[in-house]
Parts: sequence; C-alpha cells; structure tokens
Amino acid sequence: MLRYFASREAVFLLLTADGWQDWATTVEETLKAPAGPPAVAAALAASLAERPLFCDLLAHSQLSLERGVTQEQVRAFKLTTLDAVDRISHALTVALPWLTRGQAVDVIAGTTAMAAQQWQTSNPPEALARLYAEDRLFAHVASEFTPRLARLVTLLLSGAAASRSDP
Amino acid sequence: MLRYFASREAVFLLLTADGWQDWATTVEETLKAPAGPPAVAAALAASLAERPLFCDLLAHSQLSLERGVTQEQVRAFKLTTLDAVDRISHALTVALPWLTRGQAVDVIAGTTAMAAQQWQTSNPPEALARLYAEDRLFAHVASEFTPRLARLVTLLLSGAAASRSDP
Repeated sequence: MLRYFASREAVFLLLTADGWQDWATTVEETLKAPAGPPAVAAALAASLAERPLFCDLLAHSQLSLERGVTQEQVRAFKLTTLDAVDRISHALTVALPWLTRGQAVDVIAGTTAMAAQQWQTSNPPEALARLYAEDRLFAHVASEFTPRLARLVTLLLSGAAASRSDP
Repeated sequence: MLRYFASREAVFLLLTADGWQDWATTVEETLKAPAGPPAVAAALAASLAERPLFCDLLAHSQLSLERGVTQEQVRAFKLTTLDAVDRISHALTVALPWLTRGQAVDVIAGTTAMAAQQWQTSNPPEALARLYAEDRLFAHVASEFTPRLARLVTLLLSGAAASRSDP
C-alpha cells in the first residue's frame, strides 16, 4: 500500500477523486427532472454542504496535492475528475435542458471554485473565528456556507438562462 | 523589520492586502460609466489577468497565510480587504446602477474565488503542464485564464441582472 501511494499527497488526491465520483452520483440522483435555476443551485449547494472533507480537499488539491505526486498519479486523478464532470454536466442538462455543454462545464468550474473558497471562509482558523466572534466589524464576514453558495450558483445558472434570449 | 513581520506568512499577507487595494484602484479607474455585464466582466477579468502574483496569493491567503499570523495581523489584513471590497462594490454599482450592495459583495467573492482557481488551472505545475501538452485527452483542460474568467463573471452579472425582473 504505502509503496504504491508513495506520498501523503497521493492518498489525499485519491480521496479527492473519490469525492468527485461520489458527488457526481448524488447530483445524478438529485437532478432527474427539469427544474429552475434556484432549485438546481440549492441542490448543488446542499450536496456540497454534506461533503465538508471534499470541499476542503478541493481547495488543497490544486495548491499542493497535484504538485506532490507523479505524472502517472496526476493523470489518473484528472481522468477520474473529467469523468465526474461529464456525469455532472449531463445531470445539469437533464434539469436545465437549455444549458449548453460548455456552459455546464463552466458552471461546474465556478461552483467548485466558490465552494472551495466559501468552505474555508465559513470554517476559519481559530484566530479568525475569535475575531469574527469578538469584533462586530467582522460579524458579517463569517458568512454561512450553504446560503451564499446557493446564491452564487443561482447567479451563474440564471446568467446562463439569460444568455438564451440574447442574440 | 523582521521582528515586526515575525513570519514569512505575515509578509505575504501584507502583499495580498496591497494587492486588494491596488486592484480596487484599477477597478475604480476602469468602471466610471454605466456598462453591460459582458463589458464589466471583461474589465474585471483583464484587471486580474494583469495581476498574476495577486491571483496566486488569493489562493494561498486562506489556506496558509491567514493561519500563520497573529490575530492582530489577520485583523489588519481583513480591515484592508473589507475596505477594498467596499471600493470595488461602489465601482460595480457605478457601472451597473441596478446592482444591489449584497449582490456586488457576492459577485466580488465569486470573482476572486474563480480567479484564484482558474489562475492555478492556467498555470499548472510541470508534471501537469507536460500531461496537457502530450496527451490530447487533456488539451481542453488547460483553459486560458482571461476568456474563462470573463465568461464566468458574465454569468454572475447577467444572473444578477436577470433577478431584477423576477418578482
């Protein structure tokens, strides 16, 4: 086992890859019929809120995990991720039949970027958590994960919907 | 100097704070008249593309920099960042007078999250860059920073525009 993984980064990257596949399965199970952008956004935000480890790994995978493994390991990781993106894209177009494939891939990139950042914002290290609790000036910064992510994904999907009616 | 900064993280966090103020100044200078969501998105993406160090620091500030400094240092950082967010929010509402203050703050959070992620995607470590260059399967993953960020920010802003006409 240890000889195969070779590094802690490789283990975490495998967990991240599993997280992508697991998230894709939940998205497929949730988005089975046409729905409006706010409902789809709420479903995506809720499915990510249920996966705190995955959201944490999302932030770390680019910055350190992908850099600490062999080319073969990063290739396997990317293949699994691309497959998950394909599955999620397809589920998004089931719920939103007017969404183009390119828009779906952009929305997934935007959603995971915002989930990665918002998860860190909503789960600050101790010194920051104390600051948010003690100093009224910062109370509003400690925004909750699910509502803000749902608002942001709603903007992405409503923007995609609006582009349909543009010339 | 070294006694004051105490850590490398503190120095990088000061650079990140400067980056926020510097970006705010450029956004204020660029967005001086009403414009459509695609033009505003293109201006934001271009202003971030000109700031590769800031985009790189954005990804690192939450994950490691904010964790490696004292409460006083992180408080000063947050104050500078909040001031920059205020300035950028105001500039956004000059260009898009219908944008609410809450939407502007959400759009800034979304934009910086996507810029942080996309900058890492567009500037991969060596093993990944080689993979993208050698393996046709991955050629499309190495998406360019400015076009994708502009597309994503356009979706956010068009989504906000669409919410105006909703009941």
